[in-house]
Amino acid sequence: MYYHVNGDLVPAAEAAISVADRGFKYGDAAFETLRAYGGTPLAWDAHHERLVRTAETLGFADAVPEDLRKRVGRTLAENDLEDAYVRVSVTRGVQPGKLTPDPDVDPGVVVLVKELPRGGQEGTRVWDEPATVQTVRTRKAASDAIPADAKTHNYLNGLLGRIELRRSAGGGTPADECLLRDHADHVVEGATSNLFFVSDDGLRTPSADLDLLPGITRDIVLELANEEDFPVETGRYGVDAVRNADEAFLTNSTWEIRPIATIDGIDVGGGPMTTLLQRLFDDYVERTHY
Amino acid sequence: MYYHVNGDLVPAAEAAISVADRGFKYGDAAFETLRAYGGTPLAWDAHHERLVRTAETLGFADAVPEDLRKRVGRTLAENDLEDAYVRVSVTRGVQPGKLTPDPDVDPGVVVLVKELPRGGQEGTRVWDEPATVQTVRTRKAASDAIPADAKTHNYLNGLLGRIELRRSAGGGTPADECLLRDHADHVVEGATSNLFFVSDDGLRTPSADLDLLPGITRDIVLELANEEDFPVETGRYGVDAVRNADEAFLTNSTWEIRPIATIDGIDVGGGPMTTLLQRLFDDYVERTHY
Repeated sequence: MYYHVNGDLVPAAEAAISVADRGFKYGDAAFETLRAYGGTPLAWDAHHERLVRTAETLGFADAVPEDLRKRVGRTLAENDLEDAYVRVSVTRGVQPGKLTPDPDVDPGVVVLVKELPRGGQEGTRVWDEPATVQTVRTRKAASDAIPADAKTHNYLNGLLGRIELRRSAGGGTPADECLLRDHADHVVEGATSNLFFVSDDGLRTPSADLDLLPGITRDIVLELANEEDFPVETGRYGVDAVRNADEAFLTNSTWEIRPIATIDGIDVGGGPMTTLLQRLFDDYVERTHY
Repeated sequence: MYYHVNGDLVPAAEAAISVADRGFKYGDAAFETLRAYGGTPLAWDAHHERLVRTAETLGFADAVPEDLRKRVGRTLAENDLEDAYVRVSVTRGVQPGKLTPDPDVDPGVVVLVKELPRGGQEGTRVWDEPATVQTVRTRKAASDAIPADAKTHNYLNGLLGRIELRRSAGGGTPADECLLRDHADHVVEGATSNLFFVSDDGLRTPSADLDLLPGITRDIVLELANEEDFPVETGRYGVDAVRNADEAFLTNSTWEIRPIATIDGIDVGGGPMTTLLQRLFDDYVERTHY
C-alpha cells in the first residue's frame, strides 16, 4: 500500500510525519474521511469545502493545496483501488516550538487509503449488523470551546465517548456507537456518525444549530428525503424521543446508512423509511459513480 | 540535535512517527513539557505522575514505558544539554483504522529537547517582558467533554484562544497569553499557563476544582507560599477580581513565574509578593539542581 505524504507517494510502512509537525503535537490539523466508489470520491466538493472551512477556523485555509483531489486520485491509482476508504489531512506543519501559530504555513498533507469494497446495489455493507447505541456521560464539547463544525485531529471528545462504552461494558461487548448529548441534554451525534430517527411518519435529525458536525452523508440523506417529499424536521430532541422512535439510523461516509438496533438496550430498529432511504442512497451512488 | 523516537535516538530532521499513529490521527496521546536544569529534569516525579494519570484517562496507563526518565536522560546527554526544554509524548500508537481503541497498545514514545539557558539566580528568563494578557471569547471546555486535568495532544481549546488574540490584534502585536473562562464566567487558566494574583495581601489562584490543568509550577509556587506562611486562597474568581488585583503573574515550566503587565489593557503588574516568589523559586531550583 502507498500513502501520499507531503507531495510524495511512499510505502505505507514508511509514511511518517515529523514529530515537530503541529498536527502531531497539538492535533492542529483539518481532516476528512470519505469513500471512493468506482475510483471517484463521493461528494468531493462537499468534503473539500468542509476541509477548507475547518482550516479557516484554524487560520490556515490558504495552506490547503490546490491539487488535493489529484493527490487523492494518484494515491488510489497507485494502489489500484476503485472502492476505497480515504482519509485526507492538512496540518499546520512544522513551526518553531511555541503554541501561538506562525501565520506562515508550510502544511503537512497526508492521504491515507484502504480498500473498502463497495456497498450499495451490488456490494455488501461495511457493518454486519444494525448498530447498538448507548448514551454516555461524556458530553459534546460546546462550540465556544471546541467548534463542533470543524473536523480536526482533536478527536478526544468522541474518543472518550467510545472509551466509556468499553468501560461500561466490563468484559462484555461494548455498544457500536455512543450517543453524545450537549449540556442541555439534547442528543447531538455519535462519535463518528449523525443520528436520524422516524416519529409520527416524519424523518428527524438534530439541528445543525446544535453543537454537531453536519456530515456529508447526513446532507445527502436530507436531500434525498426532500426530493421524495418526505416530511423532514430538524430540531432539538431529548434521548427519550429517540428511544421511543419508530425507526432510527446512523449515517457516516463509511457506514452509509446503518439502522439502529437498540438505544440503551431498548429496541428501536430500522423500518420502511430507513430501508427506502438506503435504496435511494444506493441508487444515488450507482447513478453518480458506476 | 537528536530526538528520541520509539526507543531510538534519531537526528531531529529524521525524527518522525507513522501517519497511522493515533497520536497524529486523533491527538490520542499524553504529553508533558518540562525543563532540565543542570542536566536534571525539574520535578520529574510530578510530571511522570501526571503523564500516567493522563494516559489512565485515555485508557493506556500501562503503556507508559518504565524507562521514560532514562530516555529523557539519554536524549539530553546525546545533545550535550544541561539546561533544556523537554517534551515527552506517549501515544496510543498504530492501531487498525477505527476510532474505538484496541486495548492492546504498542505506544509511540517521543522525547523532544531544545536548549533553554537557565533562568534563576545565574541566568536570564525565557521571556523579555511581563506578559500582556487578554480575556477571550473562547471558553474552557467543560471537563465532562474534555477532561481539563489530562494533558493530551488535543490542544485545540488553548490554541483557539491564542488564535483569537492574533485575530483581535488585527495587524498589531497580539497579547502574550489569553485568559480562558469557563461557562460560568470564572477565570480558569491561560492557554499554557496558570494564573495567580494578589489581593488584600493574600495570594490567590483559581481552584483545581474548576476545569483547569493544575500545573507543576503552580504546585511548587503554592508549596513555597505555604512554607513562608503567606496567606493563600484557591477559589472561584471573575475577571474583575484579577483586573483589580494588586499583583498578578502566570506560571508554567518554561516561563517559571512571569508577572502580568496588563489584563485587557488594564495595568496590573508584579510587585513584592511576585518578586519574592520568583526569588524563592530560583532558590528552589538552585538548591535542588546545582
